[in-house]
Amino acid sequence: MVKKFVLAPDSFKESMSANEVCQAMTRGILKVFPDAEIVSAPMADGGEGTTDSLVNATAGQKIKVTIRGPLESQRIETYIGLLGSSKTAVIEMAKASGIELISKEFRNPMITSTFGTGELISAALDQGVEKIILGIGGSATNDGGSGMARALGARFLDAKGKNIPFGGGALGQVDHIDMSQFDQRVQKVKILIASDVTNPLCGENGASVVFGPQKGATDEMVKQLDQNLSHFADLVLRDLGKNVRNIEGAGAAGGLGAGLLAFTNAKMKRGIDIVTDAIDLEQKIAASDYVLTGEGGMDFQTKFGKAPYGVSKIAQKYGKPCIAMAGYIGKGVDVLYDEGMTAIFGIQSKANDLEMAMKEGAINVERTSENIARLLAIK
Amino acid sequence: MVKKFVLAPDSFKESMSANEVCQAMTRGILKVFPDAEIVSAPMADGGEGTTDSLVNATAGQKIKVTIRGPLESQRIETYIGLLGSSKTAVIEMAKASGIELISKEFRNPMITSTFGTGELISAALDQGVEKIILGIGGSATNDGGSGMARALGARFLDAKGKNIPFGGGALGQVDHIDMSQFDQRVQKVKILIASDVTNPLCGENGASVVFGPQKGATDEMVKQLDQNLSHFADLVLRDLGKNVRNIEGAGAAGGLGAGLLAFTNAKMKRGIDIVTDAIDLEQKIAASDYVLTGEGGMDFQTKFGKAPYGVSKIAQKYGKPCIAMAGYIGKGVDVLYDEGMTAIFGIQSKANDLEMAMKEGAINVERTSENIARLLAIK
Repeated sequence: MVKKFVLAPDSFKESMSANEVCQAMTRGILKVFPDAEIVSAPMADGGEGTTDSLVNATAGQKIKVTIRGPLESQRIETYIGLLGSSKTAVIEMAKASGIELISKEFRNPMITSTFGTGELISAALDQGVEKIILGIGGSATNDGGSGMARALGARFLDAKGKNIPFGGGALGQVDHIDMSQFDQRVQKVKILIASDVTNPLCGENGASVVFGPQKGATDEMVKQLDQNLSHFADLVLRDLGKNVRNIEGAGAAGGLGAGLLAFTNAKMKRGIDIVTDAIDLEQKIAASDYVLTGEGGMDFQTKFGKAPYGVSKIAQKYGKPCIAMAGYIGKGVDVLYDEGMTAIFGIQSKANDLEMAMKEGAINVERTSENIARLLAIK
Repeated sequence: MVKKFVLAPDSFKESMSANEVCQAMTRGILKVFPDAEIVSAPMADGGEGTTDSLVNATAGQKIKVTIRGPLESQRIETYIGLLGSSKTAVIEMAKASGIELISKEFRNPMITSTFGTGELISAALDQGVEKIILGIGGSATNDGGSGMARALGARFLDAKGKNIPFGGGALGQVDHIDMSQFDQRVQKVKILIASDVTNPLCGENGASVVFGPQKGATDEMVKQLDQNLSHFADLVLRDLGKNVRNIEGAGAAGGLGAGLLAFTNAKMKRGIDIVTDAIDLEQKIAASDYVLTGEGGMDFQTKFGKAPYGVSKIAQKYGKPCIAMAGYIGKGVDVLYDEGMTAIFGIQSKANDLEMAMKEGAINVERTSENIARLLAIK
């Protein structure tokens, strides 16, 4: 009987992309089962690498775009993903408005803007898609998504009718929101926000207080930013008729969550669920004999929405063995056994420093996959 | 169906004894198969740890002895092993005449002696055993086993009828060998020499040239030691009627191989075969469902008589899956797949320095064993 494998690993960060992990797993399995049917489904959890994984898993394509970075002066060459069906686009806010795009000494959420993320949405609309998957981790911003809305045609005007400056620091100056020039296509597209964050927009659990400092905000700035987001929520309620202040997840990505809920037809969903839906992982697993997954590191936190957890839950649903491998196996990883994970193997071949371990990732995944396959071939 | 496991690992050097590896494997397996039948057969390959493993595997005992060390002035407290049957003793020459018993600056094969090894044999004879298993790796000596024979009553006399000094450097002074006081029990006991060495006694592949330098011999000493062993072989032929000069393995352990063949009823055998015989490993494996083995490090050299190799060959003979684990997996380890090894897993949980990896050995073996068992439990 020909054995059917589904390979659904996340990336091994700084060592291999999810796609490269699939390739290494494939080489290992084919040594043991030369005629195995292998379905590669490189995974992601809505964070970094989600675009690449979804494009690879669906044989889609990348489309280059040039947009504004988190700082007004910044031009960024990046890309959006178009899934194989061509009806869904996938974009990552980190590629336009991400913290990694600014050197540490220039990080300042008073002036950073989500404008570029709005441009990514616009670029996706230009492709005529029906759905946009939007990953919002790793933002440099605290502007409530106002920059994103502005890129799509919303105008944030002061009492004199002039555009306010970019960034969360100026949001307090908004007198009213003018939607007359807003891109009409936005209301026709479904936007799925991949986010595991549940924080509200304002207050002590809000975007500014919880995430502001790591984006470069001082105590003073945090106070100002929080007040500004609160003012912004008031205006959104008054001018758009939407109450986003206390919605779970409104505080994600410096309030981009709130902005998306206010200005677009967006729904929030756990990243891993969006990814598994987008690549029809259930269907693939249902038709398989064995599922292989993994991630650079796995521990008790894997259960909180990481890719191997999502994969194992589906495998459990269909009664399929789900076998994981990881470069780092940390504390509490055994809670995954109750969540459908059959086994978890470390890939290291020896005591090794981290840099070498990273370099040897592919050969180690290949060897471990081969040995797993050899066990599966018993009898 | 209750699953039957045989656990036959060697030690993970500087981390765990073979017995501790068995215990860690057992903990892992019982998490998955709580009613498994587990037979622990801690292994060795005739080298360091052979006594402990055989005593543990057969529920035998250790008997303390105090004997002479490799230097004439040295007293050593050590032990011999008595297997569960009480009819076989196991001794390691390294415990009496080993290189590790002398600090580096005092290593000198001109004066080191195998006398203590003879005392170990004598102690074994005192136990009334029918068979002695003798591991001869790691010697500090180059005395042709003359010290060993002397401890058992042989006399090495110069032309004036006086005992020559200890050590390979004085062997050239022997005029004749007097066997009149030799321990009569020696001829009634079977001695099995565990050795993978095939070097002859003398010449360019002989004990002195090949192994002398690592025991502290200068070029000058090597020449003298080689001549002395040649003279020794002549006397053994003349006075004992045995031609040991060119027997394969006569050069093992500084010529102790030759001495044992000359003065006792000894046979040489590969260490791993002696160990598997001594613990009835074939019978245990024949009655099992799965065999687990392993060693601290495994690579292409494992095939040259290491414990996991010996275990896998027996597993292959009986068609049983044989699964190995190792702390270090090196080059060429996959040659073992053709030798009956089903799979080989690394135990490391992460990139780690060697010292930490050693410390975490038991927990890593336990976790890896559990995950192997979880794969075996599929379906």
